[in-house]
Formats: sequence, C-alpha cells, structure tokens
Amino acid sequence: MAKILRDEDLVDGALMTVAIDALETAFLARAGNRLISPPRHHVSFADRGDLVFTVGGILGDKPLAGFRVYETFEGVEHSQIVAVWSADDARLKGIVLGERLGNLRTGAIGGLAIRHLSAPDARTVGILGSGAQARTQLAAAAAVRKLDRARVYSRDEEKRTAFASEMQHALDIEVEVAGSAIEAVDDADIVICATTSQTPIVHAGDLKPGAHVNTVGPKTHRGYELGLDIADAAAVIATDSPEQTRAYASPFFLAGSGNDSRMVDLADIIAGKATGRRSPEDTTLFCSVGLAGTEVVVASAILDML
Amino acid sequence: MAKILRDEDLVDGALMTVAIDALETAFLARAGNRLISPPRHHVSFADRGDLVFTVGGILGDKPLAGFRVYETFEGVEHSQIVAVWSADDARLKGIVLGERLGNLRTGAIGGLAIRHLSAPDARTVGILGSGAQARTQLAAAAAVRKLDRARVYSRDEEKRTAFASEMQHALDIEVEVAGSAIEAVDDADIVICATTSQTPIVHAGDLKPGAHVNTVGPKTHRGYELGLDIADAAAVIATDSPEQTRAYASPFFLAGSGNDSRMVDLADIIAGKATGRRSPEDTTLFCSVGLAGTEVVVASAILDML
Repeated sequence: MAKILRDEDLVDGALMTVAIDALETAFLARAGNRLISPPRHHVSFADRGDLVFTVGGILGDKPLAGFRVYETFEGVEHSQIVAVWSADDARLKGIVLGERLGNLRTGAIGGLAIRHLSAPDARTVGILGSGAQARTQLAAAAAVRKLDRARVYSRDEEKRTAFASEMQHALDIEVEVAGSAIEAVDDADIVICATTSQTPIVHAGDLKPGAHVNTVGPKTHRGYELGLDIADAAAVIATDSPEQTRAYASPFFLAGSGNDSRMVDLADIIAGKATGRRSPEDTTLFCSVGLAGTEVVVASAILDML
Repeated sequence: MAKILRDEDLVDGALMTVAIDALETAFLARAGNRLISPPRHHVSFADRGDLVFTVGGILGDKPLAGFRVYETFEGVEHSQIVAVWSADDARLKGIVLGERLGNLRTGAIGGLAIRHLSAPDARTVGILGSGAQARTQLAAAAAVRKLDRARVYSRDEEKRTAFASEMQHALDIEVEVAGSAIEAVDDADIVICATTSQTPIVHAGDLKPGAHVNTVGPKTHRGYELGLDIADAAAVIATDSPEQTRAYASPFFLAGSGNDSRMVDLADIIAGKATGRRSPEDTTLFCSVGLAGTEVVVASAILDML
C-alpha cells in the first residue's frame, strides 16, 4: 500500500544524506540524458490562482516517475504534493505532503554542489540568512564536509541567535553569531548565501582565497544577493539548471556580464564531463536555481528509507 | 489536516447519492461556464509509459480546484490519485487514492442522465454487462428511481449470476439473470449498456417504447455496443461531453449518421437550456464519455461526507 508521509514524518537527521545521495544519482542521470524534467505545467482557475505541476523522473534500470504540484491560491495554509511511482511495475511508492521535502531537496542540491566544488578539507562555513533555506543548506554542508564551525549573520539579531543555538544543537558543531556579513564569511571555506536581499551583501574581497560559495537567494537583474565580482573571481561557475537561468522573467544576474557563457552544469562536473575545482586557491560559485524533477527523486529515496 | 481516502474507505451506500448530487452542481456549473475542464496533459517517460493529468474545478461561491492523475506503465497494481483544494482559502481538502472513485464518478454521471432523461415512473432496468461499470450504473439508477426489478445479461454465466446475487443484496431490489441481451432489455424502462462489445448487442426493435438507454461501453467507428437504429429512434440524444465525442482517435459512432448534429449536452438539459424527454413514449439515449474535471467535484463531496 502506498505510503503517505507528512512534514512531521521528515525529521530524521539522516534524511539529508539520503537526499544528497539520491540527487547524486539524479544528476548523473541528467548528465546521461536519463533525467526526465519537462517544463512546468500551469493550469489557471481564473482569478483564484493556478495549479502548477512539475513532472520528473529517471529512466534506466530502476525507473522512477512522479510529479510535484503546488497551488498559488490565496490562503495561509499551503500544501505541496509529491507522488512517486516505480515506472517498471506501475507501483505507487507513495505521496509526500507539505513543505519540508522541497526545502530538503533545495538543501541537498546545495550539499551536492559543496561535495563536488568546495575544498575537500573545508572546515568552516559562513552563512548569510537564517531562514528555512539557510538551515537546510548548513545541514547539507555538514552532511558532506567534516565541519568544525559555522558563523551566521542575518539582519534580525533574534533570528540569527535562534538559528545559531538551534543548528549547534541539531548538527553538533560550533555555530557562532556574527555581527556582520563580512565577519560571517571572513574565514569561511564555504559561504552559503540564503537571503532575500535584492542588493549584494558580500563581495569578492570579503572572501577567503579558495572559498566555495552557494547562492540560494535572489539572482536576477532585478536584484541579487551576491556581488558580481564574485563571479569575476570564480574559477568555476556552476548551476543545477542552465535552462532555468535562461527562463527567468527578469534576466539571470550574470546575463550580459560575460560570466554567464562560462557557467557549467553541475551534472557535468559530477559526471566528469566538465572541470570543477583545480586548486586549493580556486574560488568556486554555485548558483542554485532548483532543477525541476528532482523532488521526485528525493521523495523516492525518503519513501524507501522511512 | 488533509484527509487521505482509499478504496476501502469508499463503501458507504450513500456515496452514490452524494456523488450524483455533486455532479448535478458540476453540470449546472458547466452550463454556466463555471466548470474548469481543460484538455488532458500527458507526460511521457519514454517507453515506460505516461503520466496523464486531468485538471478540474468549479468557479463561483465555493470554488474547487484539483486534478486526477493516472499512469500507463506496465504493471498489475495501478493507482489513481485525485486531489482537491478549496480554491478560496488554498486548503487541501484531501486526496483520494484508488480505482473506486473513478467508477463511482462514471456511475454517477449515468445516474444523473437517468434522473433527467428516463421516465419519472421508471421501475425496471435491463443491464448488459456485469463488470464494475455495470455495478455502479445500476447503483446509480437505484439512487434516482424507485426500482422494482433489474435483469442482467452478460456472456459469462458465472459472472452474471454473481452480479445478480451481489446487486440484489447491495440494493435490496430483485435482480434476475437473463438468458440473452434481448430478454434483459425486453421490458426495461431503463437500459444500461456497459459492455466491452465492439458489435451491437441490442437494437431499437428490442426496446420497450419510452425506454431510456445509457451507453457506457465502446462507441467509436471501430466498434460500438449499441445498434445505430437506437439513435435513429431516439427523441433525445445527449452526452456529458460533446467535445470528447469529437476527440476520439476513431470517430464517434454517430459521426456521419446525421444523428450526431442533434446530440445535446446533458448539462444544458439539466439547466433547462435544451429540451429533454417530452412524452412517456420518447426513447432517450445518453452517451457517457466521462466529462473531464468531474472526478474532482465528486472527490470533494466525498471528502466532505466521510
């Protein structure tokens, strides 16, 4: 019988590692043209809003198929549904309801970028932002690197303090509160930028040589959280979905900068088809846009585990 | 918290009446252009099969939105998912899994046709076919007319005998087994044709004057279960979806017969915008094709009830 999971079922600390490993499989499938990831499908209910479907799956030995659906209706209580079938025997593996899977998925994509782009001996993380995405990104970093310390900055002192104590407890690493963005990233091997800022809050000169940077927040011409000089300084610029960076209503923040043409697909780096970090001094940049179809793969791995 | 219902939850005998009444609301919404029913959306997973989405909903006072999804993968265990939101507050009302809702929906559409097209004093039913659709069609007829007796015929004697005893018990009316199709419909005020036959098994001359006929089985040029002379004899020919009758790969069985142009939308009959039965002697014909979007409306009513 198909399993049904809800947010309260997705609390196991081991889920992040499971999600990252599942995504590694998905990105390898993508590099081999076996990841199914068609454009989103919107259906309008007049002025009420839309249902938006993202279908996804993997072809090959153990084929998966499924979808995520969310709505844009007006209300306080929103629900996403992700459903997964094993496509070789038509079995509905299960359904995952709620918000947590999506955050876990985005965090895990960040973790995969950190696994393949940051220095293997990275020990320190600087985090800008203290929301749900910042939490899952840090958890993902901790899942792929042996961290000693993280340092967080966000505008709201109360929130960054809560973030630090909560994450120190959850991940069992030292998490400090910084007084500024610059202080947070100053000594960081890994920088996670997961804010809602429409103006850059960190620049190339603020970074330690050899740092890896994940940008999860705004990154269009209308607004972006990272200084453009970080892309100039980066030896590698990667993204999970080059298609998606070209599909934003406002152009991608690197469009026209000369750096967008050298952006590579993270899937190709993972598969060894594109070059990643070459030296401990390289600055590397990962632009997280949310590769469609991957919610299904993460949901499948979680349904197998729980 | 969103309700999850499965086939085993959908056993209450009152569900059919709830489904028919919900569909009456949906058909009135359709007549008023408030039923959302876009074309199906197929996503292919290469040679494994497709996911097929049917989105649907109702606009107006208590707007509903949702979808049904099914797959065409190879396997023995298949699962449909229907999800419903109330579109005014973005609340996920629930999810219905399994096959039963779809059968209930198709049965209830047949019941709605019987309610609005058969003679108000219809007492007897002739059923051709003894599968799941025949069961729900008879249950639907019993929900809208005060029946004395039903008579069933299908090719497999064991199946028709099982059908008769099972339905007699379930509906508390006399259900007899007939030795032929002609014997089953001979004296019937209501004829339900729910077979897989590609050649006509009943003709106009077999029917009692004033009979109402539901055809649920094959009805394309490639094969059809009803004699074309039944359409010739019918004073009213209705369908739940004129669009769908024009969208079959093989043309609709009435295409080119001259009768297709006088086919009316059941929604318009229900709303009083088209003429239905005018006399006790009228033969009436309902061609059930499965109006898209209505699963969502039935699921919503069931989620409210259970």
